[in-house]
Amino acid sequence: MREVAVVGVGMTKFGRSEFKSQLELFGEATMDAINESQLKPKDIQALFVGNANGDINEGITVLASHAAAEVGLNHVPAIKLEGACSSGTVAIVNAFMWIAAGYADIVLAAGCERNTVTPTPDATRLMNSGNHHRYEAGTGITFPGLFAMMAHMYAHKYNIPLPQLKEYMCMVSMKNHKNGAKNPKAQFQKEITREQYMSSAMIATPLQMFDCCPISDGAAAMVLTTTEIAKKLTDKPVKIVGVGQASSGGLSTQKDYSRPIAREISVQKAYKMAGLTPKDIDVVELHDCFTIAEIVATEGLGFFDFGKGAYALEKGETQMTGRIPVNPSGGLKSKGHPVGATGVAQGYEIVNQIRGICGARQVDGAKIGLTDTLGGPFASVANIIYQRGW
Amino acid sequence: MREVAVVGVGMTKFGRSEFKSQLELFGEATMDAINESQLKPKDIQALFVGNANGDINEGITVLASHAAAEVGLNHVPAIKLEGACSSGTVAIVNAFMWIAAGYADIVLAAGCERNTVTPTPDATRLMNSGNHHRYEAGTGITFPGLFAMMAHMYAHKYNIPLPQLKEYMCMVSMKNHKNGAKNPKAQFQKEITREQYMSSAMIATPLQMFDCCPISDGAAAMVLTTTEIAKKLTDKPVKIVGVGQASSGGLSTQKDYSRPIAREISVQKAYKMAGLTPKDIDVVELHDCFTIAEIVATEGLGFFDFGKGAYALEKGETQMTGRIPVNPSGGLKSKGHPVGATGVAQGYEIVNQIRGICGARQVDGAKIGLTDTLGGPFASVANIIYQRGW
Repeated sequence: MREVAVVGVGMTKFGRSEFKSQLELFGEATMDAINESQLKPKDIQALFVGNANGDINEGITVLASHAAAEVGLNHVPAIKLEGACSSGTVAIVNAFMWIAAGYADIVLAAGCERNTVTPTPDATRLMNSGNHHRYEAGTGITFPGLFAMMAHMYAHKYNIPLPQLKEYMCMVSMKNHKNGAKNPKAQFQKEITREQYMSSAMIATPLQMFDCCPISDGAAAMVLTTTEIAKKLTDKPVKIVGVGQASSGGLSTQKDYSRPIAREISVQKAYKMAGLTPKDIDVVELHDCFTIAEIVATEGLGFFDFGKGAYALEKGETQMTGRIPVNPSGGLKSKGHPVGATGVAQGYEIVNQIRGICGARQVDGAKIGLTDTLGGPFASVANIIYQRGW
Repeated sequence: MREVAVVGVGMTKFGRSEFKSQLELFGEATMDAINESQLKPKDIQALFVGNANGDINEGITVLASHAAAEVGLNHVPAIKLEGACSSGTVAIVNAFMWIAAGYADIVLAAGCERNTVTPTPDATRLMNSGNHHRYEAGTGITFPGLFAMMAHMYAHKYNIPLPQLKEYMCMVSMKNHKNGAKNPKAQFQKEITREQYMSSAMIATPLQMFDCCPISDGAAAMVLTTTEIAKKLTDKPVKIVGVGQASSGGLSTQKDYSRPIAREISVQKAYKMAGLTPKDIDVVELHDCFTIAEIVATEGLGFFDFGKGAYALEKGETQMTGRIPVNPSGGLKSKGHPVGATGVAQGYEIVNQIRGICGARQVDGAKIGLTDTLGGPFASVANIIYQRGW
């Protein structure tokens, strides 16, 4: 397999896009990534777009072809990939394969989504399309409900009283809002207090409003190429050294919601390919769609023993200056979660962390970073490991 | 790049599936393909599913993960790809890349769709999602309308009176129905007469009912592996020797609907990769969503000069015994067009033609075959060349 490197990244501000369509958001992020790469649209040989809900909420199929035309890509192969919340990472993984295989030399992976156009009742139905449409979506389960069950199972399994677990979940929320306050592209750039957290509206016991990431619009993009070509284009070398992906079925096929099996399989593939272990990772962007999801993810990714992720928060181990800084961008919680864009935006953050250009939210000396996305009812996970240097 | 071979194919009967969901159809085709490969589900390392409309018509996202679980694939990476009517071919192309890259050894590419559940007015809206959602879908253009314009442009450009062009379009319809009558998996297994064709309902001038392919349900699947592994699994060797894909924007970006630019770019990539020319192709399955589309495709794929595809029909050159047999399966017109499954079903036919097991519709001595899918407003094209032997 040929080595693959990143030579440019771009990202819109996340939040509510009242007037720009998802394709216009795509164009904004993509042109930033292409310009940063010192390339022109005509240099791009293939396009991979992660998008989860465009079909349902804007009635659009063959989105990737329209996206390619939007930025003047010259009739390139244009591929839309969908794996719910993992869509963006899946786009990067497949872009990686085309270069690794030797079929293309310079490709663009992107993600875009515009979900705030959907009114709240429809948004619940839209998100719920990620549950098994035939056997589970109709039961009344929603994603806040699903992750509420994850919290209950975690509390029960590890014998942590719910009020105590809530304190740890509050720490996740406060940490990510604190990080996001330093990210000019975050949807929410404001710290929150414990009092605000505890008094926020109950959504699905024990999840309150500040446990939940927002509905967002946004796009992110990344230009990938061979290490050889990258050496000529950039002096800020970042390689992709490991990719992993795995799946599972709906909720009824899973025994323990506090340990999504797809994540454990996916990330081990990525570690194995990179020849690295969790101890080697300097910074991680992971799937904190709900605060409990961050706790569970830090365990599944191998940073803490199972049942110990909550206690790690108490010790500040996932803070910016802790042992393994988690979600320096603010994560989905504070930066926002435009579904198809999320995995690519995680890549944007990690690449810039490795380049050392994240300013107030820079993780000191970050050389190796991991991204993690969890889609549907824990049904699609994809992970990527980025590393500095040739 | 590693060489890639096909070791198993499967396909449901196309038509109306009243009781089986698209995932059940997927399971049926997939288990046939896996069984034919002498493999077990646990041997499959990744899954690629082409599906165009599942989001809109059955409200399902993360379909590929649920599909993997449906047949007991063991937590494999599961990827849904969408490029409107080219979705199935795009799934095979990306499956090919994972093996070519050396990242996976045995993968499954499939396509599924269930569109007859959608009532006719909604079906028009559903299909129309393939047009540019923002600038064109709302203008009243429909796909029959689009291909009617293609027919008018073709007639005008090459100075063929419409009644004369209609005779050639009738020959396409009669040929494909004649071929489909010999295909036990075709939606329509019945020949039609010129009189039936000419007296059928007008849909969009000059397209009548027998110029249009049907709305269909169905699935198809293909197991791909390295040539080395394939040698141990099958004595009916079929390799994938060329893949190509290309895109274009909406109608407003295209000058000549009688020459979809994406097809010409895509198929040239496939020919170049295979080191072959149109003269080397023994059999082709191409995108005859409407009869005029077959005429235009035979030119774009290089079998006839531009403007001469219509006259080739008169000479019988695309008949089973002609110079280049086109759509021996019956094509979309007679076999049916379950959108996401179509490209994989074309692969099913070509693989079996190369194996020489197509019985009454066997093309004598077929060794090299081409597939062709055209998605959206001529916006996504993918082509694959299959060849006999190691």
